[in-house]
Amino acid sequence: MDAHADLHARLKTFMAEEVLPRCPEIRAFTAANPPGARPPVIAALKAQARAQGLWNLGLPDLPDWAPGARLSNLAFAPLAETMGAIPWAAELFNCHAPDLPTMEMLLKTGTEAQKDRWLLPLLEGEICTGFSMTEPRTASSDARNIATRIEDAGDHWIVNGHKWFTGNAGVPGWSFTVLIGVTDPDAAAYARHSALIVPIDLPGVHVVRHIPTLGFSDRWRPNAEVVFENVRVPKDHLLGERGRGFAAAQVRLATARIHHCMRSIGGAELMIALMCERAGTRETFGRPIAQHDKIREFVALSRVEIDQARLLTLNAADALDRKGGRGAQAEISQIKLAVARACYDVADRAVQVFGAMGVTDDSPVADFYAGMRALRIYDGPDEVHVRTIARAEFDRQAALHPEGLMRYLCTDFSDRSRWEGAPAHG
Amino acid sequence: MDAHADLHARLKTFMAEEVLPRCPEIRAFTAANPPGARPPVIAALKAQARAQGLWNLGLPDLPDWAPGARLSNLAFAPLAETMGAIPWAAELFNCHAPDLPTMEMLLKTGTEAQKDRWLLPLLEGEICTGFSMTEPRTASSDARNIATRIEDAGDHWIVNGHKWFTGNAGVPGWSFTVLIGVTDPDAAAYARHSALIVPIDLPGVHVVRHIPTLGFSDRWRPNAEVVFENVRVPKDHLLGERGRGFAAAQVRLATARIHHCMRSIGGAELMIALMCERAGTRETFGRPIAQHDKIREFVALSRVEIDQARLLTLNAADALDRKGGRGAQAEISQIKLAVARACYDVADRAVQVFGAMGVTDDSPVADFYAGMRALRIYDGPDEVHVRTIARAEFDRQAALHPEGLMRYLCTDFSDRSRWEGAPAHG
Amino acid sequence: MDAHADLHARLKTFMAEEVLPRCPEIRAFTAANPPGARPPVIAALKAQARAQGLWNLGLPDLPDWAPGARLSNLAFAPLAETMGAIPWAAELFNCHAPDLPTMEMLLKTGTEAQKDRWLLPLLEGEICTGFSMTEPRTASSDARNIATRIEDAGDHWIVNGHKWFTGNAGVPGWSFTVLIGVTDPDAAAYARHSALIVPIDLPGVHVVRHIPTLGFSDRWRPNAEVVFENVRVPKDHLLGERGRGFAAAQVRLATARIHHCMRSIGGAELMIALMCERAGTRETFGRPIAQHDKIREFVALSRVEIDQARLLTLNAADALDRKGGRGAQAEISQIKLAVARACYDVADRAVQVFGAMGVTDDSPVADFYAGMRALRIYDGPDEVHVRTIARAEFDRQAALHPEGLMRYLCTDFSDRSRWEGAPAHG
Amino acid sequence: MDAHADLHARLKTFMAEEVLPRCPEIRAFTAANPPGARPPVIAALKAQARAQGLWNLGLPDLPDWAPGARLSNLAFAPLAETMGAIPWAAELFNCHAPDLPTMEMLLKTGTEAQKDRWLLPLLEGEICTGFSMTEPRTASSDARNIATRIEDAGDHWIVNGHKWFTGNAGVPGWSFTVLIGVTDPDAAAYARHSALIVPIDLPGVHVVRHIPTLGFSDRWRPNAEVVFENVRVPKDHLLGERGRGFAAAQVRLATARIHHCMRSIGGAELMIALMCERAGTRETFGRPIAQHDKIREFVALSRVEIDQARLLTLNAADALDRKGGRGAQAEISQIKLAVARACYDVADRAVQVFGAMGVTDDSPVADFYAGMRALRIYDGPDEVHVRTIARAEFDRQAALHPEGLMRYLCTDFSDRSRWEGAPAHG
Repeated sequence: MDAHADLHARLKTFMAEEVLPRCPEIRAFTAANPPGARPPVIAALKAQARAQGLWNLGLPDLPDWAPGARLSNLAFAPLAETMGAIPWAAELFNCHAPDLPTMEMLLKTGTEAQKDRWLLPLLEGEICTGFSMTEPRTASSDARNIATRIEDAGDHWIVNGHKWFTGNAGVPGWSFTVLIGVTDPDAAAYARHSALIVPIDLPGVHVVRHIPTLGFSDRWRPNAEVVFENVRVPKDHLLGERGRGFAAAQVRLATARIHHCMRSIGGAELMIALMCERAGTRETFGRPIAQHDKIREFVALSRVEIDQARLLTLNAADALDRKGGRGAQAEISQIKLAVARACYDVADRAVQVFGAMGVTDDSPVADFYAGMRALRIYDGPDEVHVRTIARAEFDRQAALHPEGLMRYLCTDFSDRSRWEGAPAHG
Repeated sequence: MDAHADLHARLKTFMAEEVLPRCPEIRAFTAANPPGARPPVIAALKAQARAQGLWNLGLPDLPDWAPGARLSNLAFAPLAETMGAIPWAAELFNCHAPDLPTMEMLLKTGTEAQKDRWLLPLLEGEICTGFSMTEPRTASSDARNIATRIEDAGDHWIVNGHKWFTGNAGVPGWSFTVLIGVTDPDAAAYARHSALIVPIDLPGVHVVRHIPTLGFSDRWRPNAEVVFENVRVPKDHLLGERGRGFAAAQVRLATARIHHCMRSIGGAELMIALMCERAGTRETFGRPIAQHDKIREFVALSRVEIDQARLLTLNAADALDRKGGRGAQAEISQIKLAVARACYDVADRAVQVFGAMGVTDDSPVADFYAGMRALRIYDGPDEVHVRTIARAEFDRQAALHPEGLMRYLCTDFSDRSRWEGAPAHG
Repeated sequence: MDAHADLHARLKTFMAEEVLPRCPEIRAFTAANPPGARPPVIAALKAQARAQGLWNLGLPDLPDWAPGARLSNLAFAPLAETMGAIPWAAELFNCHAPDLPTMEMLLKTGTEAQKDRWLLPLLEGEICTGFSMTEPRTASSDARNIATRIEDAGDHWIVNGHKWFTGNAGVPGWSFTVLIGVTDPDAAAYARHSALIVPIDLPGVHVVRHIPTLGFSDRWRPNAEVVFENVRVPKDHLLGERGRGFAAAQVRLATARIHHCMRSIGGAELMIALMCERAGTRETFGRPIAQHDKIREFVALSRVEIDQARLLTLNAADALDRKGGRGAQAEISQIKLAVARACYDVADRAVQVFGAMGVTDDSPVADFYAGMRALRIYDGPDEVHVRTIARAEFDRQAALHPEGLMRYLCTDFSDRSRWEGAPAHG
Repeated sequence: MDAHADLHARLKTFMAEEVLPRCPEIRAFTAANPPGARPPVIAALKAQARAQGLWNLGLPDLPDWAPGARLSNLAFAPLAETMGAIPWAAELFNCHAPDLPTMEMLLKTGTEAQKDRWLLPLLEGEICTGFSMTEPRTASSDARNIATRIEDAGDHWIVNGHKWFTGNAGVPGWSFTVLIGVTDPDAAAYARHSALIVPIDLPGVHVVRHIPTLGFSDRWRPNAEVVFENVRVPKDHLLGERGRGFAAAQVRLATARIHHCMRSIGGAELMIALMCERAGTRETFGRPIAQHDKIREFVALSRVEIDQARLLTLNAADALDRKGGRGAQAEISQIKLAVARACYDVADRAVQVFGAMGVTDDSPVADFYAGMRALRIYDGPDEVHVRTIARAEFDRQAALHPEGLMRYLCTDFSDRSRWEGAPAHG
């Protein structure tokens, strides 16, 4: 990672000198403007970041012609953590969700024409996109339930469906969404879906509303409920192969999940810093809060859990670099489960340390707490990742110990010599 | 409790027939109007409830002249639970916080003139009030930190201080707040404070803002940040004895805490009902969600925890009836700790069962979850109640076993015969 | 419960004056003698207890001719708790497992001849018994897996099977075991089993060993592994109806489970007392341990959890009195789950407070801890009780809200007016 | 770590071919012989292991003349994990506690004469030792409480004290113990203690008993309670500088703690393997246990937690290599806290999966469970490590953010413009 130490140092400086001091003004702007609005300073900061080489840091496989740093996932992890401390910062470096995973998806499965039309402006940070997979009317944690239909109408597709949590609604430059729907209802369960680029301005795209969620930062990057009603989409907007949409979504989700984890760890580090600062400035029952065992426990457990979360995330990033999204599925499910949980627990403690201020918009604590609660659901709820990890582990153990260990380590209750030798009781 | 079975039956019918069907319209009204606004139907429903005897149910010691049912705390508990399922319902029966505790406080410590002027309209449901204890600039979990000053200026008091979470801001009829401040800074730690009735429309009362918190129901009954700047308050507005404000606040908090617990249990019961309903209507991985072990575990643990929470609350209500707020302090700390935690855990499970819909405003789940998170802080954070319970328990054990039990049950390591009898090793 | 206050007072005195002071000598005796051995003082104490009316307290339905107090389950609960503090005490009052449930079973399903021969000496405390249900070679948490065969050989039964955790092995007077096995393998899943009285001294009964478990008190009342090999049992030893063994076992288990819970609460109360005493006598980092927040939290949480466990147990005892074992199944599963867990958590804290002494045999802490860990498995593991409670709750909610609540409380995503009215975006 | 891959491969083969198949015989031998006894095969296995270079693997700083592999802590970690799966295995490679930390201590602080006399036979695996720090009569988690006196009597020391958990009692070759006691009662709190080599056969050394603990493996390597009564110890047996005993013990504990963690992870891996195997061979409610969500959750959480525990341990091993025991104190406290907890949770799940067999001696599960419970106390209870980690974190944050972050991220409630600009309410 040494080669990237300089990049990381510059990023840290940028965060300390450009981002942190602007937090109050961004907070005020967001509260006073419609969801998704951007103050002019954002464009200036993006230009400044790009000029310093802090641009497109999370795309390992960028082609030569594209601007960006080509860091491996492992190398990107500490940078993603650093920018993740402040919810609005990743965008400055063009490393934010859901656009970064969209770029990844276009890079991996887009046609040249699609790349020209859609990827290029994304890499330049000129447009932004949504991802429309989850639906309000089905249990989307089992992706086979997805009901949106993409019908082949000869020279175009006709889309009908109801999605929500489609990102970037209201953000300037919002241009299209990558929609997952059923093209082949009679195919095998995992071969029914395709991914389709749907421009937001097509007739029949109803953006029902910005979805209010628990946190405050949904105003910065709103998710929308979107109804697609007989939307006609040009034939060449299919992204990747027909019937491979499920697999393509999984690859995209691998990136989305690991980046979410990296950034969340950055947020959790900020929570630890704030907890320590707050605990040092208040007093109850005759002692600074920082001297209460319970606060010490909060800080110590948070330290341990976040260090473990980071190490596991680096491990998964390395697996992703080596094995790709499909090969690293179990490792990524591991971090999705563990990191969301660890960050949530840290957030919960920070709320408690901040007291009433921990549930208002007067500190970043409540917003981070709400975000981490949602993260236990977004990108697959805990229960789904438990399945993936367990299945991999059962397979692994079966391969490691094909004949089992219990014969060496446990009593064999079928061994008759255990009682036949002994004097019968009766 | 049989004498009150009929009252409870009527309340249940009212909730089912009048409250539940109006939830969609109330939800729509609240989202579309300023915080605190009330639709006209509310007044009609209050009149209807009162006509059925469902009025002022939570005040055991009402004088003869006052309208209300005079239930004991124990008898009120199931009714409070029933109305607690829907956040806006308690107001229909004039049993809502923070007004009910304010009435309690006026009943117990108010002068006749104060009762005439302030209690009467409260009992009629004509006005509403705030309670101004906690402060944004001190750690209010240790009440001795309260910094607001109430100075004796001869014929009036002068108040200077900074409060928040003062309730009912913006609700029609908001007329005064009960403020806790320091009148006697040189007195002993618990004899410094007094309670003062401060009309909201006095000069120098700055209502800074409605405080946004995580949930959605803060729009129904907003809390405000309020700055008191050289506010002149008439001398006869002191509520209770000078220097006894801390004790008076504790008595009020006893009522507030136990009612909060009762209502929260009602909310948690609703969550269980919703979890079961939702789990019965969705399917993942080839089975209805209700057949997944994890969902069963969610339901079973919730059932057990809420039944325990209710029993402990009834136990505390009985203690409050028998021993008063001061005598039942440990029992009330017990429920504050246990009920908030149990309801929060139930809420967390409901969020998970509802998935993405568990963090939006499309179900009552997210709002209840946020409310229960806040409840672990409001009315004293968990840590404060732990102190109270532990202190009581150490005292109790010392009284029960003055000479201890270890001499009977544990090895006495000072007993030399344990080793002197044995052959020396060396 | 007032009628029984005197009985309870006498029991408390007996525990304080006769039991507690003899703990050291019993502990020394047990360590130095074979598992199951009894010192002479036990017989004397039993006689003494019986003379005071402290005898057969846990059998509500005793016939007139039998000695005992005929307390309801609800009335017995506090007495069971009191005697449960000391693991060897319940036997002094003839209220110990597994003999009390065996008496219950004989009372409810035994023939007159069986009662004369087996129940009478049990009620007199002259003999003791085992219960042979669980098997080492099948997953007994699903009772349908029970593999032991009871074949009808005309004038006798032939038993073949492998059981363990058959109680009272080695205790003087150990005379028979109640065995659950398959008589009708082709019947419906819950109609295959029967209960059979199997005298321990019959040929073919192999008592393989006393089973060492984690705790130290398995020496006082050992469980045995027992192999039954072509054991011929007289025809009239069938207990209850053929094919009803499963149901009979469930009734017996209802009693066994609730008594286990009651006694465990007594043990947990002792743990709290010991924690407080220990914490008052040690010092670390310049303060008595009792002043560390973490210890306070241990004590406070333990207090809350045990009070809740007790209230829920009283609730279940009342249900058992009113509805019988089958009717109170969900309530009993509730306490089995909750009480084992609460007592275990208390035990875990006691271990931590006692430090190294918490894992040795120098205090009752380690033994209680081990016993509570086992209790999360014995009499049905947590997972089985979760199923029972969840099933009952799903049924209950379906009956309470046949049409559901979501239509009032949640967004209806199929409502087209939500987006059709709005201006189309595209 | 590549250079050591071959060593690790050989160790794995040795475990699979020599250790695992002998588990039944070792288990039978231990149950049938006095605590500490060793069957002849152990000596043979030690010779065999040494011949393969699998000897003294955990001592990074061995001098040239000594036999051993000189692995760094980081390189040793995976090997320690591998041997840790089976409790009696580490001894075969001379890598077992408490002898390995004793060797470390002698290497670092012993005189040449002490090394000749004591270290040499330890490195050869010919003798074994105890460590006598903790005392039954004081709260040893605060080491300043240690009460054992080491008095300077001119040409020898006189030791008086009461210790327990002194290891290797009854094991052949048990020759001395390293005792921590007070030489300078009037010095500063951390300069009072010294370390002293006390031969076990000196007059006045009373080995009171082998201490029974919850697990079964205390028979393989028993801990003893030892009373030292006027034991005269030669002057040259002081280990390290007078008054530096506390620091020396901490260094030793760093090694002991990290090795304990490494081996425990190996034990936890075995538990995961056994859980998977067991779950694949049993069926309840119509499905293999392995298909129940709850079991999947057990397996998945265990996988995640142990992977995190291992990564954190490697991180601490690296810190220990780079910064030494004192410098890596916080990192080692981190793993002591986290690894003991993670392994304990895994063990608890394994108990539940094994059911009744999880609390008997018929599988390694109960013993591992008991060992992990004890580990949360041994080598410093959780609470002590929380203090260490929290202190380091508060220091670290103060250095990172000397001016704090709240001024950028939180509302400044002292900012008068927040309300002065607004229209006064009153």
